[in-house]
Amino acid sequence: MLFDSEIDRAVRGGTPLTETVPWKALEAHSREIRDVHMRELFAADPDRSSRFSLEIEDLLFDYSKNRIDETTVRLLCELARASGVGEAAHAMYSGEKINCTEDRAVLHVALRNRANTPILVDGEDVMPGVNAVLRKMRGFSEAVRSGQWLGFTGRRITSVVNIGIGGSDLGPAMICEALTPYCDGPRVGFISNVDATDFVEKTRGLDPAEILFVVASKTFTTQETMTNAHTARRWLVDALGDEAAVARHFVALSTNREAVEAFGITPECAFDFWYWVGGRSSSWSAIGLTVALAVGFDRFVELLDGAHVVDRHFIGAPFEENIPVLMAMLGIWYRNFFGASTKAVLPYDQYLRRFPAYLQQSDMESNGKSTDRDGCRVGYATGPVIWGEPGTNGQHAFYQLIHQGTELVPCDFIGVINSHNPIGDHRQKLVANCFAQTEALMQGRTADEVETDLRAKGLDDEEIQELLPHKVFTGNRPTNTIVLDRVTPRSLGMLIALYEHQIFVQGVVWRVNSFDQWGVELGKVLAGRILGEEKKLLEGEEVDLSHHDSSTRALIKRFVTRQDPS
Amino acid sequence: MLFDSEIDRAVRGGTPLTETVPWKALEAHSREIRDVHMRELFAADPDRSSRFSLEIEDLLFDYSKNRIDETTVRLLCELARASGVGEAAHAMYSGEKINCTEDRAVLHVALRNRANTPILVDGEDVMPGVNAVLRKMRGFSEAVRSGQWLGFTGRRITSVVNIGIGGSDLGPAMICEALTPYCDGPRVGFISNVDATDFVEKTRGLDPAEILFVVASKTFTTQETMTNAHTARRWLVDALGDEAAVARHFVALSTNREAVEAFGITPECAFDFWYWVGGRSSSWSAIGLTVALAVGFDRFVELLDGAHVVDRHFIGAPFEENIPVLMAMLGIWYRNFFGASTKAVLPYDQYLRRFPAYLQQSDMESNGKSTDRDGCRVGYATGPVIWGEPGTNGQHAFYQLIHQGTELVPCDFIGVINSHNPIGDHRQKLVANCFAQTEALMQGRTADEVETDLRAKGLDDEEIQELLPHKVFTGNRPTNTIVLDRVTPRSLGMLIALYEHQIFVQGVVWRVNSFDQWGVELGKVLAGRILGEEKKLLEGEEVDLSHHDSSTRALIKRFVTRQDPS
Repeated sequence: MLFDSEIDRAVRGGTPLTETVPWKALEAHSREIRDVHMRELFAADPDRSSRFSLEIEDLLFDYSKNRIDETTVRLLCELARASGVGEAAHAMYSGEKINCTEDRAVLHVALRNRANTPILVDGEDVMPGVNAVLRKMRGFSEAVRSGQWLGFTGRRITSVVNIGIGGSDLGPAMICEALTPYCDGPRVGFISNVDATDFVEKTRGLDPAEILFVVASKTFTTQETMTNAHTARRWLVDALGDEAAVARHFVALSTNREAVEAFGITPECAFDFWYWVGGRSSSWSAIGLTVALAVGFDRFVELLDGAHVVDRHFIGAPFEENIPVLMAMLGIWYRNFFGASTKAVLPYDQYLRRFPAYLQQSDMESNGKSTDRDGCRVGYATGPVIWGEPGTNGQHAFYQLIHQGTELVPCDFIGVINSHNPIGDHRQKLVANCFAQTEALMQGRTADEVETDLRAKGLDDEEIQELLPHKVFTGNRPTNTIVLDRVTPRSLGMLIALYEHQIFVQGVVWRVNSFDQWGVELGKVLAGRILGEEKKLLEGEEVDLSHHDSSTRALIKRFVTRQDPS
Repeated sequence: MLFDSEIDRAVRGGTPLTETVPWKALEAHSREIRDVHMRELFAADPDRSSRFSLEIEDLLFDYSKNRIDETTVRLLCELARASGVGEAAHAMYSGEKINCTEDRAVLHVALRNRANTPILVDGEDVMPGVNAVLRKMRGFSEAVRSGQWLGFTGRRITSVVNIGIGGSDLGPAMICEALTPYCDGPRVGFISNVDATDFVEKTRGLDPAEILFVVASKTFTTQETMTNAHTARRWLVDALGDEAAVARHFVALSTNREAVEAFGITPECAFDFWYWVGGRSSSWSAIGLTVALAVGFDRFVELLDGAHVVDRHFIGAPFEENIPVLMAMLGIWYRNFFGASTKAVLPYDQYLRRFPAYLQQSDMESNGKSTDRDGCRVGYATGPVIWGEPGTNGQHAFYQLIHQGTELVPCDFIGVINSHNPIGDHRQKLVANCFAQTEALMQGRTADEVETDLRAKGLDDEEIQELLPHKVFTGNRPTNTIVLDRVTPRSLGMLIALYEHQIFVQGVVWRVNSFDQWGVELGKVLAGRILGEEKKLLEGEEVDLSHHDSSTRALIKRFVTRQDPS
């Protein structure tokens, strides 16, 4: 905890989470299990692997390499139940306004509600609206992909460039890269950073006459996105010589129709979504248009189908057999009872390279909070730092710390059995490494085993004495293993939805509102102020900077004096 | 700590780090400073910014937004002195075998020793060898870039594809991307993952007749690298129809001459380096050849020059004015006295996008250890998890947690004043965001400030009561700000070297050997075993898997039964 409770729960009432019966029981239980090595647990129970594995279709979730026994699972599920996870899930699915600080429903499940059962918000079924936008996305994406939709000069669209940031970038970018083998439409690129380099590098070599820019911003006011969109607009109009070209080369994904129209985008090219779609779970909405353009609408629907399968699993399966619930509660187990501050997500498939970066937003923006839904400061750790790089690359970078560092880093290994690029024994090696890491992290290597090994290599006593302690692995480091048969639109939809629900469950248990993001506001306000000051200073005006601390003041001055003359 | 000391310092002797006088003093001091808000520190000292800022050439290191006062700096420097940081640095610079578990010198400073002063290892000056390889790199890179070196069919080399992993990939890849504006040679790509997708995607559309593969592996046995190298070799020979083509299209960066020759690479194309070059600081050696091919040898030398400037600063400046020492000690301050488990590295320049991934290896593989140089289990936290994405992207992803999460995440902000792509006010916005984040993290926003703000917006008491706690920012979150005038070969060399020495200093204080990586071994061994088993099973042989735990066993079987028939 970083601070003392300013507003104490005592003032607002209720039992603190850490004083509840299931929490206390887990605390006591964690003290028992702390000294148990997973080696012993595996040795004691020949069925451990099947006992702690679950499947949905061809997706396997093996959570047997965790520091748990059946009691742990029972107690964790009790905590989930006592926290009202089931009720909260039903509230979400039925359109209740569970985003309490913004008084909004949270309905990414509606976006992929392939059963098409009515979901009411303020008494109105949202499904007709959802389906209408999906139909519009189908129509437009098929027109572009078939060449029926042409650019201003009559040329086909060969490149789609998505301009968005955060949820309007990370989801679609990750999905498009993951589904590269299915990308049979225009080539796609993503511009997000306000650094103009992002624009320059992503448009290098592209022909303006064949580009479609997809501007994704819920409010159509996001600074980065609109700066890039206006730069793109100027670039395009300069190249094609006519403002009217905008209507053939720009699409908007936004709820702000007026601003979209003012930009020069026609209603035909404006795709709506709704206030109940959160940025970090918006890939299922119109924000997914770039995905549909890349892989085709039918495959976009397969993505939705996959998510829907998981949605039904999550709402229907008992907690003890519920993959997202177990993922969530295992996370809480390490975060709150073992002090783990981070979780590593390690996809063993190059196409899933950006899955950890996607998940950073999805998880950390949702649960990186210190105020609970009652407005009280939490007295326990919430969302961990999510990080990772693809295997096997990470093995040659940071696995050293995961194996032998002083920090407990629970890991999710994501293995994929079949490759879209089967060459030689590459995939066998990749998968062998994935499984071997989970084995090594669990088993470790004892001093006795190291000694035997070193002796076999012919080292003498003194050498062994020196080297041995460095070659010991304590093991007992927890991992989940998620295995897909193959990265397909459907399996990817399942994977993403699993993590979405995991995050949801953790938010419920930690009592935070996972759906707001007030923590991004202050920086925005201060950046706006500094930008105004920079501009005035660069124009030679006097500006009073005394409201800034001396460091920020000095930094602003440094920027102004050292900037190249324009 | 994850485990009890198996081998206690009491057995081996010496004072535990946490019992030393400077450590104890810092512990006491940290209790005093814990409740001080940086707002107060800035208010109390109008000169705080200049007091806690340092420069090397045009690089600024502003560390004033840390939870420190002058006493903190004094005590941290005392700890560094008492830990023998100065002596250790001199030992490193003079070629002593400070990599104690492998009995090797650690001499990346020799690779960029532009002063060319002799550095002796085992009585022999390494500089003539260093200079000879640099000359060979110059000759070869200039031959390729000028078109004097031709492919097997007489065509110019237009693409260089680096095949390496870990230090043979992350450094060169990060540097090439950072120096994109200087890339005027052949186009460069990097293949690292053993997943064949990496090979397929990075060679897509390239013409084998115009490719140069740079195979970077110290031992020339790294599984991923050699698998990719052999796939590349087959692909090339298939395309060009002659084994002899290998000699014109493959280069090796390796110490294993025999294996290089067996691969078909001529001595002319084999670039040596030395056992005293560690993988994670090898970009300055022959491993930098891809960089030299991309940007030209003169710019590669500027990179070395930049690093050399920092090397002289590090060895010469008093600790209180020594940037890497202060970076290191501030890291220790938060890691060991504030319980911070991670550090975020946030470059505000899209070309530095992969700097955090590079730094993950550099830092976490060096100091993610639990055994000290005497073979004792450490009784304190060592290397943190390093993570980050470029600004402004991260702001829309994970900054929520940094601002309002329960975890203290010290951050390094890297700001760059001038862009290589100056368009409109993109850079002003980028820089304003960078500085504003450091201001917001430090200042925070109090309940009173939030209330004033909400009242001004017309909210009523009840609404304010509900929303207020969610909009409070505690602030007091520490950041360093490193500012470059521009990303150039020289400034990039400086930046990398600063972090290298930071990591070195921390390793010395934490008493770990930062130069070995025993923690990656076990996974390699087990992966080799599983690979053998997979292959046998796929060929229909019976294999005894009983030595595996039930989970690993089930995973192996799943892979074998669900793999596509080949």
